[in-house]
Formats: sequence, C-alpha cells, structure tokens
Amino acid sequence: MQTPDTPVDEAPSVFDSHCSARDALELIASKWTMLILPALASAPMRNGALLRRIDGISQKMLTQTLRDLERNGLVIRDDRQTVPPHVEYRLSQLGQSLSRTLTILDTWAEQNFPALDRAKERYDQQHSVKRNR
Amino acid sequence: MQTPDTPVDEAPSVFDSHCSARDALELIASKWTMLILPALASAPMRNGALLRRIDGISQKMLTQTLRDLERNGLVIRDDRQTVPPHVEYRLSQLGQSLSRTLTILDTWAEQNFPALDRAKERYDQQHSVKRNR
Repeated sequence: MQTPDTPVDEAPSVFDSHCSARDALELIASKWTMLILPALASAPMRNGALLRRIDGISQKMLTQTLRDLERNGLVIRDDRQTVPPHVEYRLSQLGQSLSRTLTILDTWAEQNFPALDRAKERYDQQHSVKRNR
Repeated sequence: MQTPDTPVDEAPSVFDSHCSARDALELIASKWTMLILPALASAPMRNGALLRRIDGISQKMLTQTLRDLERNGLVIRDDRQTVPPHVEYRLSQLGQSLSRTLTILDTWAEQNFPALDRAKERYDQQHSVKRNR
C-alpha cells in the first residue's frame, strides 16, 4: 500500500546523487572512457596500441582508466602469462553495449564541432561587445 | 593526387587531441552536461528547478556548466527582462540532438549499474585475496 511517506518515484535515477546509477554515469562521463571503449570496439588492443590510438593520453591515465573499466566489468584484461608478457584488453559484452552508444557520441562530436565552434565565436564576440560598452 | 606525405586519414577525429572534435567531446564528457541536457529535454527550466532536479549540483557548477552550454550553442538562455527577473533555459536544436544520445546513456547507467556493482564486488574480492596471499 502506498502511504503518504512513500516516495513517488523509486526507480533508479541518475538524477539522484545517492543512486548507484550516478556512480555508473560518473565512470562514463570521462573523455578517456569515451575514447577507450570505442577504440576497443573494433579489436582487442595492447597497451602500446591504445597509447598510439588515443592521442594525448598519459600512461598513468591509461592504466588507471583501464583498471577502472576492468573493475566495473566493461573491459577484460587478458594476460597470456607468457615471457615476454603479452597483455591484451578487450570489451566484455557489457562494454560492447556501452561502446555502441559512446561511438554515437564520438561521431556526434566529429560531425557537430564546427557548429559548436561557430556558436563560441558568436558568444565571445557578443560578450566582448557588452564588456567594452 | 595523393603524395607519400598526405596523411591517410584527414577526417576530423576525437582520437586526435589537436582536433576541435576533441574539445566538443570534453564538453560532453561531464556528468553535469549529461544531466542538464536530458533534464531540459522535457521542458524549459529555471535555475531553481534545475537545482532541485539535479541532486548534488552546486549553484556554482550549475551556473558554470549552463554558461559553457550556452556558449557552445547547446542551451538558450531566455531572459524575459522583467522585474522580478524571469530567466529560463531551453535546448537549442543542436542541444536537442545531443540530448537524445545523452538520454540513452543515462538510461544505460540506470539499467546496468547493478551489473557494474556486481563486477566491482567480484574484482575487489579477487584482488583482496591476491593481496592477502
């Protein structure tokens, strides 16, 4: 029975800071996550290949993000236990499902950045005019 | 004619840190962007309504993110120039197109956080076992 104290909406929500869905969103809301998962969508990759593919990422940030993604079950670290070591990273099924949407976002950025750049130019012009009045 | 010096791939790419598409990705890769744009997808909102809708955001961060989104042409700040002031924020057409994909991501987080939580628990258990050996 619904009492007056029962919250109206108990479904998990990213808008609720105490909901674990927000933690999931915070993991996703990182440019490195948004680049690593789509990079791995085409094929498993080793550390060096990821470093080359993702321009500007540091080794430290790559290691840390890969560990976070592995810990959350999105990326599988495949250590073949050979000498010399051969470690590959690939997407789990969960990672694949997320990478599909992230790839759409990457494509959105690639298609729409000129419109964003034009808007910024307009905004900065208008606001410098206001400041100089 | 393609000479040996012509880069193979000159299309804009988020993987290239010098491409403006990367700047666009950085704007998107923020949990506040990922919450504000989907929040505005249903209806224009005033500052106070956004503060209540997006649990955990500070006034400072809301103001700053709204200004960034306005500057990039994703959000329109509608100041009715009345006394008392009435300012509303709504999505531009560009903001609407982005908010659709961000809403898919939010829903992904809401549907899949239990799987992520289970993965984290497993990972932490395995890694504490290794540490305690």
